[in-house]
Amino acid sequence: MKILKTMPAADSFYMPAEFDRHSGCILIWPHRRDSWQNGGYAARRAFVRLCTLISDSEKVTVCARAQDYDEARRELPDNVRIVEMSSDDSWARDVAPTFVTNGKELRGIDWGFNAWGGLYNGLYFPWDQDNKLARKLCDIMDVDCYDLRHFILEGGSIHTDGEGTVITTEECLLSPGRNPELSRIQIEKMLSDTIGAKKVIWLPRGIYNDETDGHIDNICAFTSPTNVVLAWTDDENDPQYEISKECLDVLCASTDAKGRSITVHKLLQPSPVYVTEEDCRGLDCMDGEPTRVPGDRLAASYVNFYISNSTVIVPQFGDKNDAAAIETLSALFPTRKVVGLIAEDALLSRDILIGGGNIHCITQQIPDIIK
Amino acid sequence: MKILKTMPAADSFYMPAEFDRHSGCILIWPHRRDSWQNGGYAARRAFVRLCTLISDSEKVTVCARAQDYDEARRELPDNVRIVEMSSDDSWARDVAPTFVTNGKELRGIDWGFNAWGGLYNGLYFPWDQDNKLARKLCDIMDVDCYDLRHFILEGGSIHTDGEGTVITTEECLLSPGRNPELSRIQIEKMLSDTIGAKKVIWLPRGIYNDETDGHIDNICAFTSPTNVVLAWTDDENDPQYEISKECLDVLCASTDAKGRSITVHKLLQPSPVYVTEEDCRGLDCMDGEPTRVPGDRLAASYVNFYISNSTVIVPQFGDKNDAAAIETLSALFPTRKVVGLIAEDALLSRDILIGGGNIHCITQQIPDIIK
Repeated sequence: MKILKTMPAADSFYMPAEFDRHSGCILIWPHRRDSWQNGGYAARRAFVRLCTLISDSEKVTVCARAQDYDEARRELPDNVRIVEMSSDDSWARDVAPTFVTNGKELRGIDWGFNAWGGLYNGLYFPWDQDNKLARKLCDIMDVDCYDLRHFILEGGSIHTDGEGTVITTEECLLSPGRNPELSRIQIEKMLSDTIGAKKVIWLPRGIYNDETDGHIDNICAFTSPTNVVLAWTDDENDPQYEISKECLDVLCASTDAKGRSITVHKLLQPSPVYVTEEDCRGLDCMDGEPTRVPGDRLAASYVNFYISNSTVIVPQFGDKNDAAAIETLSALFPTRKVVGLIAEDALLSRDILIGGGNIHCITQQIPDIIK
Repeated sequence: MKILKTMPAADSFYMPAEFDRHSGCILIWPHRRDSWQNGGYAARRAFVRLCTLISDSEKVTVCARAQDYDEARRELPDNVRIVEMSSDDSWARDVAPTFVTNGKELRGIDWGFNAWGGLYNGLYFPWDQDNKLARKLCDIMDVDCYDLRHFILEGGSIHTDGEGTVITTEECLLSPGRNPELSRIQIEKMLSDTIGAKKVIWLPRGIYNDETDGHIDNICAFTSPTNVVLAWTDDENDPQYEISKECLDVLCASTDAKGRSITVHKLLQPSPVYVTEEDCRGLDCMDGEPTRVPGDRLAASYVNFYISNSTVIVPQFGDKNDAAAIETLSALFPTRKVVGLIAEDALLSRDILIGGGNIHCITQQIPDIIK
């Protein structure tokens, strides 16, 4: 593995869309006791089910800490590869490499990671093992790695159509906890130099109470060039309404990198999901402070799905809008099966949501370089 | 990765010879403070030089503990792959998988490992991370893995000509610290079922004072079918003389699996190498006891070389016999360059020898399945 100090775009590398073909997917076995209920045991079933679904059509690699390897190996199917890997938590979207390609070769980007805000408003300390994970994965995969550690970015804060359009949120990328020394224009330049953004569409804010400072991947996602889904509510009393309305206005007023207008497909949100006392009983404190308290509203969203080669895997919350989300996405992904993350009638998305994200947040695709 | 409960030979898999073509080689970054001088720092240069030489003609993978990854990455060349991996020590020959093939597919054998003798006469406790390493490497490599953990064996205790002949030592394989419940005939059966031995040649003992209970790879090795090198001394007062003479007698009286007689090429040993006070100053204790004391004789041997695709890398001790070892091996490996492990005139083998073995002990080849 070479550590590259050049910029991907200058080397003719770019980030493909998630709906382009993958060679694989990366996840991290859950373990953090103040993030995941019951020391991660509650979320395991969700991870196992998700890995099983994804591994139907792409090679899944799960990173497990040394002390978790044997358990992960016992729980996960044979065709899932497990690699020993230290981590502070389990959000592969944000800590695994963002992969770029020139159509012939794969390379990884090793962004700086500071637990969603560092000493300003980060969610845990320290985060050094998470920050080292991307580079070590590139090494295992034997692909060269761009050193972008001086630029703080999580994979969950960017979405691309693979054709030069990138959507993100101001709330996240302009947060004082990321790159406060960089202006909006400088950050756009960085997205251009790294993932190949020719046009950045800035949505103001992400999902209400999203502790990532409003990651784009929880509120809006490309389903194909010129088509996005947007988390939506018709309840004007819900603080989410104003947020989603602002996003809609921006999207409707925007064109993509190729000058095309964007079609917005609304995904009606589930009714608000709140933390319960039972939830909190399974969570350790962080530095002596609870990470959740009963009554906290969780950032539930159907937009937090994963697009595998054969399947789109969607959060389900036992809500009246569950079926509509599947239906809308089925129409938008005609070549893929769209399924909820369910095993034996159990709704598994909530076990991930308690951790602070959902299906998209715990996955990172590896593009297939053979087109 | 499937964990296989069958036997390799029954599945038509066998262990190729080390002089057959490799696709790669595995090593483990040194770290153990009671094995390696100065916390492993003294041996690093030897490991780096060895990896550099091997990586000229095969892909080198180095396992580094989480806390050592950054240093290993900084010291080793770009073309060496580093994977995070827990270990108790750094003897890849003995803890990495023994690879077997059917000519089309590669698989690993995960032997039981108990630190060369377990609670009987093992060299350290605990050894659980070493014991788990082979399986985890198979997982990273995405090759199926034979579960032979119920049978204690180190890779350094067997050599094969790849044509059904296996050489080993009674001192090691019949040691009460390995598989005391198994008879010699049952152990032969196991070598037949696993690596494809059709004929086992038992040498009585290994190198004098070899703390592995006399591993074969320090005293005798195939250089091609029907040809072996044997560590030798003409000094009848050296305890090594009687040991080598016994081995010579067995080899001269033996035929290989194909009924051919064996030609023995003597490699004159270096003069005895002793531990110094300076050596001991750099070594931690194990459970409060020193692992070396000044005056201990080390198990130095030229036989402990590694055969890469292009090069044979040989220990050198600054001894009058150094050149003869290179010369003898050069004649036996006409298609390979035979070199000493030297960097800028520094003899690096001693830094590995202090740890208790040499070049062969810290490497494990991965056969190339494309013949």
